[in-house]
Amino acid sequence: MQTGFHALFIPGPTNMPDRLRRAMDVPLEDHRAPDFPEFSLPLFRDLKQVFKTGSGEVFLFPASGTGGWEAAMTNTLSPGDTVLSAIFGQFSHLWSELCRRQGLRVEAVEVPWGEGVPLDIYRRKLEADKDRKIKAVLVCHNETATGVTSDVAAVREILDDIEHPALLMVDGVSSIASIDFCMDEWGVDLAVCGSQKGFMLPAGLAIVAASQKALEAGRKANCPRCFFDFEDMLCLNRDGYFPYTPATTLLRGLRESLDMLAEEGLENVFARHHRLAEGVRRAVAAWGLDLCAKGPEWHSDTISAVVVPESFNSDELVRHAYERYRLSLGLGLWKVKGRVFRVGHLGWVNELMLLQALSGCEMAMRDIGIQIEAGSGVAAAQEFYRGAMADPVRLRQAAE
Amino acid sequence: MQTGFHALFIPGPTNMPDRLRRAMDVPLEDHRAPDFPEFSLPLFRDLKQVFKTGSGEVFLFPASGTGGWEAAMTNTLSPGDTVLSAIFGQFSHLWSELCRRQGLRVEAVEVPWGEGVPLDIYRRKLEADKDRKIKAVLVCHNETATGVTSDVAAVREILDDIEHPALLMVDGVSSIASIDFCMDEWGVDLAVCGSQKGFMLPAGLAIVAASQKALEAGRKANCPRCFFDFEDMLCLNRDGYFPYTPATTLLRGLRESLDMLAEEGLENVFARHHRLAEGVRRAVAAWGLDLCAKGPEWHSDTISAVVVPESFNSDELVRHAYERYRLSLGLGLWKVKGRVFRVGHLGWVNELMLLQALSGCEMAMRDIGIQIEAGSGVAAAQEFYRGAMADPVRLRQAAE
Amino acid sequence: MQTGFHALFIPGPTNMPDRLRRAMDVPLEDHRAPDFPEFSLPLFRDLKQVFKTGSGEVFLFPASGTGGWEAAMTNTLSPGDTVLSAIFGQFSHLWSELCRRQGLRVEAVEVPWGEGVPLDIYRRKLEADKDRKIKAVLVCHNETATGVTSDVAAVREILDDIEHPALLMVDGVSSIASIDFCMDEWGVDLAVCGSQKGFMLPAGLAIVAASQKALEAGRKANCPRCFFDFEDMLCLNRDGYFPYTPATTLLRGLRESLDMLAEEGLENVFARHHRLAEGVRRAVAAWGLDLCAKGPEWHSDTISAVVVPESFNSDELVRHAYERYRLSLGLGLWKVKGRVFRVGHLGWVNELMLLQALSGCEMAMRDIGIQIEAGSGVAAAQEFYRGAMADPVRLRQAAE
Amino acid sequence: MQTGFHALFIPGPTNMPDRLRRAMDVPLEDHRAPDFPEFSLPLFRDLKQVFKTGSGEVFLFPASGTGGWEAAMTNTLSPGDTVLSAIFGQFSHLWSELCRRQGLRVEAVEVPWGEGVPLDIYRRKLEADKDRKIKAVLVCHNETATGVTSDVAAVREILDDIEHPALLMVDGVSSIASIDFCMDEWGVDLAVCGSQKGFMLPAGLAIVAASQKALEAGRKANCPRCFFDFEDMLCLNRDGYFPYTPATTLLRGLRESLDMLAEEGLENVFARHHRLAEGVRRAVAAWGLDLCAKGPEWHSDTISAVVVPESFNSDELVRHAYERYRLSLGLGLWKVKGRVFRVGHLGWVNELMLLQALSGCEMAMRDIGIQIEAGSGVAAAQEFYRGAMADPVRLRQAAE
Repeated sequence: MQTGFHALFIPGPTNMPDRLRRAMDVPLEDHRAPDFPEFSLPLFRDLKQVFKTGSGEVFLFPASGTGGWEAAMTNTLSPGDTVLSAIFGQFSHLWSELCRRQGLRVEAVEVPWGEGVPLDIYRRKLEADKDRKIKAVLVCHNETATGVTSDVAAVREILDDIEHPALLMVDGVSSIASIDFCMDEWGVDLAVCGSQKGFMLPAGLAIVAASQKALEAGRKANCPRCFFDFEDMLCLNRDGYFPYTPATTLLRGLRESLDMLAEEGLENVFARHHRLAEGVRRAVAAWGLDLCAKGPEWHSDTISAVVVPESFNSDELVRHAYERYRLSLGLGLWKVKGRVFRVGHLGWVNELMLLQALSGCEMAMRDIGIQIEAGSGVAAAQEFYRGAMADPVRLRQAAE
Repeated sequence: MQTGFHALFIPGPTNMPDRLRRAMDVPLEDHRAPDFPEFSLPLFRDLKQVFKTGSGEVFLFPASGTGGWEAAMTNTLSPGDTVLSAIFGQFSHLWSELCRRQGLRVEAVEVPWGEGVPLDIYRRKLEADKDRKIKAVLVCHNETATGVTSDVAAVREILDDIEHPALLMVDGVSSIASIDFCMDEWGVDLAVCGSQKGFMLPAGLAIVAASQKALEAGRKANCPRCFFDFEDMLCLNRDGYFPYTPATTLLRGLRESLDMLAEEGLENVFARHHRLAEGVRRAVAAWGLDLCAKGPEWHSDTISAVVVPESFNSDELVRHAYERYRLSLGLGLWKVKGRVFRVGHLGWVNELMLLQALSGCEMAMRDIGIQIEAGSGVAAAQEFYRGAMADPVRLRQAAE
Repeated sequence: MQTGFHALFIPGPTNMPDRLRRAMDVPLEDHRAPDFPEFSLPLFRDLKQVFKTGSGEVFLFPASGTGGWEAAMTNTLSPGDTVLSAIFGQFSHLWSELCRRQGLRVEAVEVPWGEGVPLDIYRRKLEADKDRKIKAVLVCHNETATGVTSDVAAVREILDDIEHPALLMVDGVSSIASIDFCMDEWGVDLAVCGSQKGFMLPAGLAIVAASQKALEAGRKANCPRCFFDFEDMLCLNRDGYFPYTPATTLLRGLRESLDMLAEEGLENVFARHHRLAEGVRRAVAAWGLDLCAKGPEWHSDTISAVVVPESFNSDELVRHAYERYRLSLGLGLWKVKGRVFRVGHLGWVNELMLLQALSGCEMAMRDIGIQIEAGSGVAAAQEFYRGAMADPVRLRQAAE
Repeated sequence: MQTGFHALFIPGPTNMPDRLRRAMDVPLEDHRAPDFPEFSLPLFRDLKQVFKTGSGEVFLFPASGTGGWEAAMTNTLSPGDTVLSAIFGQFSHLWSELCRRQGLRVEAVEVPWGEGVPLDIYRRKLEADKDRKIKAVLVCHNETATGVTSDVAAVREILDDIEHPALLMVDGVSSIASIDFCMDEWGVDLAVCGSQKGFMLPAGLAIVAASQKALEAGRKANCPRCFFDFEDMLCLNRDGYFPYTPATTLLRGLRESLDMLAEEGLENVFARHHRLAEGVRRAVAAWGLDLCAKGPEWHSDTISAVVVPESFNSDELVRHAYERYRLSLGLGLWKVKGRVFRVGHLGWVNELMLLQALSGCEMAMRDIGIQIEAGSGVAAAQEFYRGAMADPVRLRQAAE
């Protein structure tokens, strides 16, 4: 029997706060009750604040992020439509694959893993698209497989610059609610998120936001859809109900999650993720190892993918950490299988939790023979964390 | 502030046992952990026993029953294929509608609400289908809107009798795990269920079983699909994993649910539902009211839809029961809106719970002016329940 | 395996609201943390409101009501001191027994079970006590064994009338927070309660309130005490801490319980208990049976002890209800063993819950051969409950 | 708002496993139910295995460890009896104080804090006690204030050696279920424990074991007692019931706790505590600091009290760790107030959890100016933990 709490540092599902656990420990309820809308309507209102959209609509499907992608594509496009995408990790790849399955033509740009959306190539492709065949431009905001964050605003600038009418679609699964995301300001038309990352909930909700332009496009879109249909949802959501049985337990959790995000303050949430991520990066540097992300401009504040030295297999490391130290790290996927291990540092995390994860990484690496110095990463992160909040004002705030 | 426990007697979500609540009150977990399959693989094995299938495959999607329908159709049919269906309630209607949305041709037989699948008409339609254009025959096993159970085995007999190769697809959302369902014996090719009825869990899992014949048909089916793709699922399920983040919390609940069903014994579960339903029917008779179901052959053991006298509106009754007595009953939907109220008696229920619901119905009916005798239905159900278990063997068993 | 929720209608522990369950589902915590007093100090403040005392002090011991009695006696009296008590049930008896064990002299008045504190005898005894040897007068506010409520204010009047300085001590275990209790107005010096009745929590907290006069008396009292010492408690409680590890989980539950009582409003809580109890009494009358309480002046709004007809054994009834219908009723204790069964109707209860209990009583009584009419008690209670809240203002309030 | 899990490393309450939380998240129940003994009787049986007693009796009071002491003393001694005790910390002091309050004469040996029971002085005192006035010898097995473990078996040897009939009473609050304790083998007559340490439960249960010799002595003992009376308990416990409402929620937790201890295996539990404690001691050495315990023979495997350098105040350190890093450490109490901070490493802990605590200690110490090297203690503990389980057999076992 293994003892003590299991340490969960995969890139999602994330650690769930006790408040959320309690919020979901409820009897089942009548989703057609007369007072149900008093609960459900504010959910939509408050989710818009997290997406930073005033004019968009938010949808809540009982599904996963993959279902959110499917909803985004089938509600706004028609078979044969072209989408522009860039592939630089498992998840940007899968999204493009899903588009193909739905009958879309995918113009996919292959990018080295460790980089993100190639702005210059996107610009060239879009400029070259004189006939405006490209109906949607896909941006994986935060590639969960490599720990790479792309610049969504810059893609919007390109589209505006050349007056390209394509929809801007963003996979924000591992960014939204953890890294700043400005739907309206960045002119995002479709944003996809799930419950199990920044919202700190179990998997089971696909959270999708659509701009008015996207909804407008949807009226002509004829990809078949039913379970994921925006119109059916809107029609009943307006009054606080759902076209089929909603996952009320998760909605109760979402209510509490939104309250917690608001209490901490979204900007504080983002600052915290940045600070915690920076400590992990200091630790990686102290170990003398590299991140998968090929430069600070790509650094993700939610996931760090760490490259193991040539002669080692990261699968073995992850397995050993799990079995020997009750520590869950993310595996390397597909092209970086065996080459990286991933530390998730998003959601309900703090300094001591990450120092725990780093201690586990250190022991596991040394156990399989990777030559890093014991305690070196931990010390570097400790020193950064101590300093990062060292000014008295923040110290006082932290104590509150 | 309302006090006391809320009484939930809608036709799903159902009352959730404490054991299931506890089983789902768990930290989030690593769905790619090396020991995850030790947990996940037995789920599939044990689900097959509930569906009573040896050779079929079971799929678990993070979705609702509607998603289960979509999975069933898109994985086995191609746009333009014809399906035969019968419409006798809100849910049989919606299923046909979903087929249309997915590009299928629906040969829909309209049946008076209160009856179920019309065997003679089905036989005639299938016999007339010389070119075998009908690729699937749809049976809503238990129409949740009217409390009507149809005879699945008889449809299989017709198909066999005339050697029609169509797939037999069954909506078992409000029957499976509460009313006997024999996938292999009845030759069912696709069966759809959700987590929030007989499995006593929150909504959020679409549970779909497919026969080998259905899987075979799927290889040629070209309805677009990705989130709901059987092949992707099978490919990873085989080793105990999932193609995208599964709703692990619900899976933990499902584990416990399967254990509870096994502990009670499936046949005992069915017998209990029959006994409890019969008590409710005795109460309705004592009130001098009619069920929506037009005869005992259609009586559902999971839902009773009760017709209110002409001059009354069941919407008002349901609302009043909710607000005044903390009792949730099912509304009348669409064609029977305002005409029936529904009592869900499936899942984690017993005699005293139903007597509570009946007391609430009696008070609420009298409050809005329906002339029934106070306590009459309760007394009839009491007497039935007392007798129904009166033989000593069962009495002793009940005490264990 | 038994199915459905167990129906708990013993006179405590009572049904626990989900809010309280959740409030106690917390990690363990540091009871010496710098911010612990922010949580603990308001508990004492708000408890005083429930006891309706401004000048008294409230104590929270990790113990049961019996421990509360022990705290009350040992902190205020010395071995050899005389206390006046009346015995009319198991709990008034046990309290006197505890006094004897602590070395006190008990002047015990035996009263027929079914009556309460005999005011005239108390007056005579106190008047006869010219030397003021009686140091404390004991009043069991609500005798849990018989469902009898006594008149505390009247005892205070007697004491005042004859200017007797004895402390007035009240066992409010099954009354406080359910039946009106006015510590200051009634001049109560010591009041004892537990967590598992009107506070709707698990057993484990003895809640004791002491007047300044009682605390003053305590300074000269030399019954040995340590675990239950008031001074040790006061000394640390003042700053929000405890002399030994407190039951923080229950304290978290108590916080929520106090909030719930405040939200409903104490006077509404009392009115609800009265209304619900009256329905039960109507049912008993409809059955043609008697309460143990010998007249309306003794009727308890928290417990009804029902006398079974001569030839029947209530132990058998209670056991049968438990085993056959998952219904827990209270046994008859000591002198009324086999003669009464008790229905607890305190705490988190509402109309439908009590109708459920009454249905269970009816079936169980008929099963063992008691000749009551099926549904008769339920019908009487239903009709009372319908009318009791029939005026529109209350109806509206109930809906909120 | 503070984020992430709070890190609890006080010397009790300890971290509560999720299994225990769930086991206690239950509706309240009928403690007089006919099947209650099926649950309660095995509790006593299995507790005896934890105390390692075959012939003793175990008592479960709804109280704290302090209540357990009171039960031990009042049930076996009479006012005026002499007890021999040694005082070397806050808790050994309080126990002696409680004896005085109960009217006992306390022969107290003052010992420097950091040492434990002084075997030679005990021997001399007992040898000098020719009249056998000493009725009980008190041993604080594990002094929670200083992290010092005493040798209980050696005290038994002394008693046997000189044939002294005094009862051997042991405070095992912070040792039992974490450090080996052999009631029968060591001839312990009374052992006191609480639920909130090695049993990993909330505070609220005093767990007391008594030998037959102690029960025999109790028959003549006349300290007043009622709430804590052994005889009342035994009388009802025999049939699986309790003389007053038991804390059933905690008993449900205790059931699960006993199961967990048995699954891990008591000897493995002890070995784990030793291993984890040793890692902490290595860290303290690496910091160049001293333990309060004055030598390895006193080292406690459940608590390490660390002495801060002269010019620093450990109160400030503990407060800072709490407010800045969400880390709860134990304060220095009484004579070592301001001089030590305490790390609790008992109960549901593992390597990564302790490394987290050590990281927090390091940062907090550096923040207030204590000159230790960042990461030094963590590295020392890491290296010990890696090695401590490095042989292949244990590695494999750990993975199971």
